[in-house]
Amino acid sequence: MLKDYQKSERPSEEEIEQRLEELRASLFSKQTEIRDHKLPVLVVFDGWGAAGKGSVLGKVIRNIDPRFFKTATTQAKSEDELRKPFLYRHFVKIPEAGKFEFLDGSWMDEVTSEYLQGKLSKEDYQSRMESIKKFERQLTDNGYLVLKFFFHIDEKEQKKRIDGLLDDKNTKWRVSDWDLWQNKHYDKCMDAFEEYLRETNQSQAPWYVIDAKNKKWAELQVLEIMVNGIDMALSRGAQAVPILQNVFPLRKTPKLDKIPLNKSVPEEEYKKELDKLQKKLSKLHNELYRKRIPVIIAYEGWDAAGKGGNIKRITGALDPRGFEVHPIASPEPHEKARHYLWRFWTRLPRSGHVAIFDRTWYGRVMVERLEGFCSENDWQRAYNEINEFEKELTDWGAIVIKFWVQIDKDTQLARFTDRQNTPEKQWKITDEDWRNREKWDQYEEAINEMLQKTNTTTAPWYVLESNDKKYARIKALKILIEEIEKRL
Amino acid sequence: MLKDYQKSERPSEEEIEQRLEELRASLFSKQTEIRDHKLPVLVVFDGWGAAGKGSVLGKVIRNIDPRFFKTATTQAKSEDELRKPFLYRHFVKIPEAGKFEFLDGSWMDEVTSEYLQGKLSKEDYQSRMESIKKFERQLTDNGYLVLKFFFHIDEKEQKKRIDGLLDDKNTKWRVSDWDLWQNKHYDKCMDAFEEYLRETNQSQAPWYVIDAKNKKWAELQVLEIMVNGIDMALSRGAQAVPILQNVFPLRKTPKLDKIPLNKSVPEEEYKKELDKLQKKLSKLHNELYRKRIPVIIAYEGWDAAGKGGNIKRITGALDPRGFEVHPIASPEPHEKARHYLWRFWTRLPRSGHVAIFDRTWYGRVMVERLEGFCSENDWQRAYNEINEFEKELTDWGAIVIKFWVQIDKDTQLARFTDRQNTPEKQWKITDEDWRNREKWDQYEEAINEMLQKTNTTTAPWYVLESNDKKYARIKALKILIEEIEKRL
Repeated sequence: MLKDYQKSERPSEEEIEQRLEELRASLFSKQTEIRDHKLPVLVVFDGWGAAGKGSVLGKVIRNIDPRFFKTATTQAKSEDELRKPFLYRHFVKIPEAGKFEFLDGSWMDEVTSEYLQGKLSKEDYQSRMESIKKFERQLTDNGYLVLKFFFHIDEKEQKKRIDGLLDDKNTKWRVSDWDLWQNKHYDKCMDAFEEYLRETNQSQAPWYVIDAKNKKWAELQVLEIMVNGIDMALSRGAQAVPILQNVFPLRKTPKLDKIPLNKSVPEEEYKKELDKLQKKLSKLHNELYRKRIPVIIAYEGWDAAGKGGNIKRITGALDPRGFEVHPIASPEPHEKARHYLWRFWTRLPRSGHVAIFDRTWYGRVMVERLEGFCSENDWQRAYNEINEFEKELTDWGAIVIKFWVQIDKDTQLARFTDRQNTPEKQWKITDEDWRNREKWDQYEEAINEMLQKTNTTTAPWYVLESNDKKYARIKALKILIEEIEKRL
Repeated sequence: MLKDYQKSERPSEEEIEQRLEELRASLFSKQTEIRDHKLPVLVVFDGWGAAGKGSVLGKVIRNIDPRFFKTATTQAKSEDELRKPFLYRHFVKIPEAGKFEFLDGSWMDEVTSEYLQGKLSKEDYQSRMESIKKFERQLTDNGYLVLKFFFHIDEKEQKKRIDGLLDDKNTKWRVSDWDLWQNKHYDKCMDAFEEYLRETNQSQAPWYVIDAKNKKWAELQVLEIMVNGIDMALSRGAQAVPILQNVFPLRKTPKLDKIPLNKSVPEEEYKKELDKLQKKLSKLHNELYRKRIPVIIAYEGWDAAGKGGNIKRITGALDPRGFEVHPIASPEPHEKARHYLWRFWTRLPRSGHVAIFDRTWYGRVMVERLEGFCSENDWQRAYNEINEFEKELTDWGAIVIKFWVQIDKDTQLARFTDRQNTPEKQWKITDEDWRNREKWDQYEEAINEMLQKTNTTTAPWYVLESNDKKYARIKALKILIEEIEKRL
């Protein structure tokens, strides 16, 4: 794409000025439409160092009300970001519906520079590109407009600009080591950029190469593509995209109604076991911390199945400085305005920490599916998206364990009635619980499908038989310990 | 995709039977919706030899009324197909709106077998994959549903099936050399298939790997994906997709109003020149034929600009056995029901022949644009699609020349009036010509954009100044001769 890139003819100065004026006005007027259509727009400015990305970005945003956009610049990774999965710092920056996010340097900058400077093996580089393709596809599949610009200048022009910046003590600081490195290894960079652009040039999120020799002309090219892209996105109707095949290795999963629920553990044995297992887990937690292994535990289950008490028996064994519990309720407006996985990406633990989710991203294929909070295409696509998400976590090095806390319908009724009749437990029971109970069969079908399609070998589901809560707690601790020991 | 492919668990016999029945009924009922929504559906069955593609295909189509589908099987290339571009035999088979096309073996089969058996270099193989990606993207961008199945069996199973077929004299003929070759070189094929699937696994036309060990189970997987895919395609609204960047090397193009039209040639000189040039062209035509070089000449121009007479001076020099002229009017219903380039793909010359198009695929960005016969997204996308189309032609080895026959508005008026007033010319002038004339300025803008965006170095536009028709004829002959000589 870069090597055979041929510039279009640059119009005359006056023509550029005239068209710029039109396009600026057009972009200005489109921000209201974007807001009304709740369209999220992600615009990335990538390209050669000193190609003028930041300067054009600065001009583009002048046409947009500051309430409707955010910008971010590539920074060195913070201590926190270094301890998160590679995509974390990028995923958390996605715009909310109806707004723009402008990035001065994106994930491209990050992975190509790391690869070129020997910090990333060829193999890891390729796996990053695969992750990036999935990330961008998840955004466009979920209604995002993604515009990717590559600012292109030749070796000489880059040299000239770098020298110009270095000559002035007021601009000297703007030249980075990476800029200098690029110019010294221009051809090598060209090869890597070419490969990156080719690999990640997807029809739903294509690359646009910008001839950046002249700043006004570059601005014009960017504005034109932005305005066209926005028009395209605003004009299209309900988005529905092909459901990709679930290519993740899956474990065999029994249907819920085939799981015997008569298992129990006597009080005496329970106390002894609990004490023993918690001590063991406590030790393992230290080791995890030392080895910087992140652990993610996902809890799902029927209302009144005993998730809360189960989680307490886990956290009771953990050092409070090394874990967080995230109770997941229905999303807040700023969360609902973004990709449904955003609120989980933002809650990932740092390496060495344990994050426990009390209800999870699986809401997409349970409550959101059954209550019609998303389209059929949305939840059907979600199994694969969730498997991709969890694969990012395990590729990062995380231990991912998913518990389904299972009870039967009678047990739920007994617990509901008990809650209803016990004043100090009444806060635990709501009308919604009763309404959900009426949909037991529909939920059971959805849960069976969910377990079957997301029970991957790398992020497995475990069913905790919780008619006897004590049995379920012991089982959870045992599984957790076993999975951690496998990895230490 | 194949190497790490893990089969889903196969349901019990009864469950398969029950779900098959539901899915067959569902597919049956969907054919009416497909017709009503004018959805074209292309289904390809690829995979290992003897994996049962044909047998499952045969079962699937039983649920569809024969009026609504066609099937095709990979055949050895005919003499005619060997003399056409690689994509020709595939493009001509695309379904029309509201109907299915089922392919038992697709372009995948063709390119992987040629590559594996040494008939295609690695480089050509990769370029074919690029062409295929563009072809499939052009289909989905233009509203096609494309479903791609890969029937997967392991080496042992393939051997068992081949042996079974060979043992029976009634089925022996069904085993091809290519099937035998595959089984002998199973691992090598696996590598190539894996690479092909990975490269061509686009989100808009993804691959689905089918566990083909059990035929009913394979049928079930196929039906399920088909029904889901059709639901997805039917549920989506107006399609609008990103406009890709025009990455083709372009020539500098003057605006039409900057082109002087005062050029002319005296009668005497015209006759001499015409005679000389036609004799030369005649000789070159023989050489082209001998060297099997195809030539495609596209004529566009204002009404009454003199296209017909210009074409006559070309064909007058050609051997009638070696050229065709295609006058292009508005598309017929069976043409309108397909991708707009289909009626040009079907009219391509054989190698060594000359095809002259009197009006062309550029109708998409002129009349279809201005009369609203396609959406804005459609014609904006078309510049790139047309450049891709022409690149397929030049990559195949064709000489592609495009003439814009230019006159000014006054000259057109004079010729219209003359036609109106001359009884034997009256058939040449219609009300539509007068209506088009009223939109001269809009057309001029569209033509300028078209010339600018499609004037590629490999398939260039030439403006023929035709206020003096004789001048335009001589110029056309000269350009044609020059372009041919460059290539001989």
